[in-house]
Amino acid sequence: MTPFPGAPVVDLRGDDPEERRRWRQMCERSAGLEGEADAAARTIILDVRARGDEAVIEATARFEGRTLLAADFELCADARREACARVRPELRAALEVAAANVDAFHRTQRFAESGRESGDAHHRSRVTPLSRVAVYAPGGTAAYPSSVLMTAIPARVAGVDEIILFTPRPTDVVVLAAQLAGVDRIFAIGGAQAIAAAALGTATIPRVDKIVGPGNAYVTAAKRQVFGLCDIDGIAGPSEILILADSRAEPPLIAADLLAQAEHDPLACPILVTDCADLLAPVQAELASQLASLPRATIAARALAEQGALVLVRDRAAMVAAANDYAPEHLELLVDDAERLVPALRTAGAIFVGRWTPEAAGDYTAGPSHVLPTAGAARFASPLGVWDFLKYTSILRMGPAALREQAPAIVALARAEGLEAHARAAELRFGRGLGNGLTDDLTSDHHGEPRHD
Amino acid sequence: MTPFPGAPVVDLRGDDPEERRRWRQMCERSAGLEGEADAAARTIILDVRARGDEAVIEATARFEGRTLLAADFELCADARREACARVRPELRAALEVAAANVDAFHRTQRFAESGRESGDAHHRSRVTPLSRVAVYAPGGTAAYPSSVLMTAIPARVAGVDEIILFTPRPTDVVVLAAQLAGVDRIFAIGGAQAIAAAALGTATIPRVDKIVGPGNAYVTAAKRQVFGLCDIDGIAGPSEILILADSRAEPPLIAADLLAQAEHDPLACPILVTDCADLLAPVQAELASQLASLPRATIAARALAEQGALVLVRDRAAMVAAANDYAPEHLELLVDDAERLVPALRTAGAIFVGRWTPEAAGDYTAGPSHVLPTAGAARFASPLGVWDFLKYTSILRMGPAALREQAPAIVALARAEGLEAHARAAELRFGRGLGNGLTDDLTSDHHGEPRHD
Repeated sequence: MTPFPGAPVVDLRGDDPEERRRWRQMCERSAGLEGEADAAARTIILDVRARGDEAVIEATARFEGRTLLAADFELCADARREACARVRPELRAALEVAAANVDAFHRTQRFAESGRESGDAHHRSRVTPLSRVAVYAPGGTAAYPSSVLMTAIPARVAGVDEIILFTPRPTDVVVLAAQLAGVDRIFAIGGAQAIAAAALGTATIPRVDKIVGPGNAYVTAAKRQVFGLCDIDGIAGPSEILILADSRAEPPLIAADLLAQAEHDPLACPILVTDCADLLAPVQAELASQLASLPRATIAARALAEQGALVLVRDRAAMVAAANDYAPEHLELLVDDAERLVPALRTAGAIFVGRWTPEAAGDYTAGPSHVLPTAGAARFASPLGVWDFLKYTSILRMGPAALREQAPAIVALARAEGLEAHARAAELRFGRGLGNGLTDDLTSDHHGEPRHD
Repeated sequence: MTPFPGAPVVDLRGDDPEERRRWRQMCERSAGLEGEADAAARTIILDVRARGDEAVIEATARFEGRTLLAADFELCADARREACARVRPELRAALEVAAANVDAFHRTQRFAESGRESGDAHHRSRVTPLSRVAVYAPGGTAAYPSSVLMTAIPARVAGVDEIILFTPRPTDVVVLAAQLAGVDRIFAIGGAQAIAAAALGTATIPRVDKIVGPGNAYVTAAKRQVFGLCDIDGIAGPSEILILADSRAEPPLIAADLLAQAEHDPLACPILVTDCADLLAPVQAELASQLASLPRATIAARALAEQGALVLVRDRAAMVAAANDYAPEHLELLVDDAERLVPALRTAGAIFVGRWTPEAAGDYTAGPSHVLPTAGAARFASPLGVWDFLKYTSILRMGPAALREQAPAIVALARAEGLEAHARAAELRFGRGLGNGLTDDLTSDHHGEPRHD
């Protein structure tokens, strides 16, 4: 049995500066600046830029011990079909339940053109889907078919033309998830080389507009560096849950949900915040007892001991404040009248309201994407959604009246900014500003009519 | 007079591989990977993280030759008021016209909660504004009051609680623009140190959720590096215009609008694409003649000669294809029946339709923000808008029926992913999964009712 010393307790009920300092430190985690993986990722990106497919082949051999030809990068239709057929029926059924809910939820995220007409001016914001996006899914123990659903389905709902899955070793169930999600192509490539190839394009791999989905440290570092060449969904850190619980919450559920987070990764952050000191002993006991029979007990125990905390606060208001300070990826409300707390909770990726909404439901079947901002990014970032796969374009159309009305302001501002050619570009439409003998009115030309409108 | 050899001509009407290569090279510009400024920016960021205000003071002294105390970072109310009062009335009036139009346009960008109810499950995407954002405005010759309007007004319309302007040397007109845009605080700090302070917070400067607005190479490098600590609006490159013109377009207008772009920066990109060879000579003549009297002729001539091009294509379809390949920040349509081209034009920051819509109107008074994706980012990025200052939060609430219905799928998927604690977190709600003597039904507890919903 994994030795489990208990989760650390942080007591914020008093004004103990040392306890407050510990809590502040927990809150101040962030995606941070570049780390060790960045130099390695940069080398791979530059190599892929210089040598394309060859660099991808070489990095795959070096880092994964796989030898493949460019012709083998992509899974053929037969291989995809066969992989799908090998998935057990009950697992297929489970994926279908999840896919249907994810699809239905994201179909409610609708974005319409906005804009405004005023006189002969008409300006609008057009909405169009991105053309081609990459969905990344890690290999190894973190090969999660659920992540393929959670990233590809919002892209498909948005109307993206081509969705490409990059994953180092596509398992059967991942291939089936891709099929259900409407993925167009699957490349059996992973790591920083996959990110580089997707962002830059190679002879075999088409360049994409955006890369989404979680990956290891090298994938994350590569995504950070290609941002600008293409878009990315964000910089992912370890998974987190913060549970708000009051005196009526059930210790077995609290412990189970903390452990479901903790088992992901030794760096996962499972945090309980409560105003009820009496909860602590039963929660610690439940953690120890449930841990005992968990296959990933070692991982979960480390996460609990190293990033976890049972945080005691004075009252309900302090619970809300703690959640807002921490800005967790997942925020679970195991409190009375939980829905009433929601409006005050401003910084969380996803909020799980009440005992019948375990975070695990959000991971798989509820509908909203489980790709969420981590490391405090919930202050400013959103869950993955249809919005990630749309872009706006401003479309401006003025007639002579609007331009005539605005010209004095354009000219005044342009001259104030020292941009004379800007001022003249407006004046010239009315035959002024060049002093070059043009007629005073260009609004009718030799056809007797304005040429363009 | 500035010597002007004429803008380079690229002829894509045939299949000359050298001409195609030149065009591809123009299209393949991008924000690229890290450059020279990045190392310098990183040093400043790490110093601000370590030493806070002191590092800001030191960097300001070193790079700008300004000595200031932390107490002088922020402009006081009196200083703001006095600065506003010094602005000439006609310039104030011009700013007011622009501010009103920018405000009215952005008020049409509305985002409502979306979501879905199904049985006792209710999931939604809540929309909330960011709490605190930084607007950056460069100093020196690039101190553009218009940029303050174009960044701060969308933030204010979104409902951001606190908008902070960072600008190294606030001119009177910049301070007035901030006032009209509803900026809450002004810090007279610029450069990478301003970006670092905004992203990390110091004793004097509060940490923000997002940083927007253009800046020099160091500011851009710093923004790229703090992405993840906070959000940023994108990685800005030099300004660009691509004009589509046909045989009926007027050479003086084409030249004027190319020059308005070219005068920004020797690195600006002014491109004409036309299917009418007869346009080239008059456009070259107009460029030379209009350049002659421009104050920023040297800058504009360099931009035209070095990044500019007059591109000849076969027909209207090839014009559209060229625009989509280039993905320009500004796309101007000086063609017959311009509006009919718009649906096919998929990659541009902003499209200016017809001769009465000079790009200069978009820079100042039309309404849509002039902060737009550059360097090909229009493939995947949007103009600055209200959407930049909102975030979504997923709010999930299930009842016992929904969880019971989904539990088998949750359990199957969790076990397939090797995440046993996830499976148990769902099962436990129904008294299963622990084998620890819990009753078979936790749905009623000692209060006889489910505790939370």
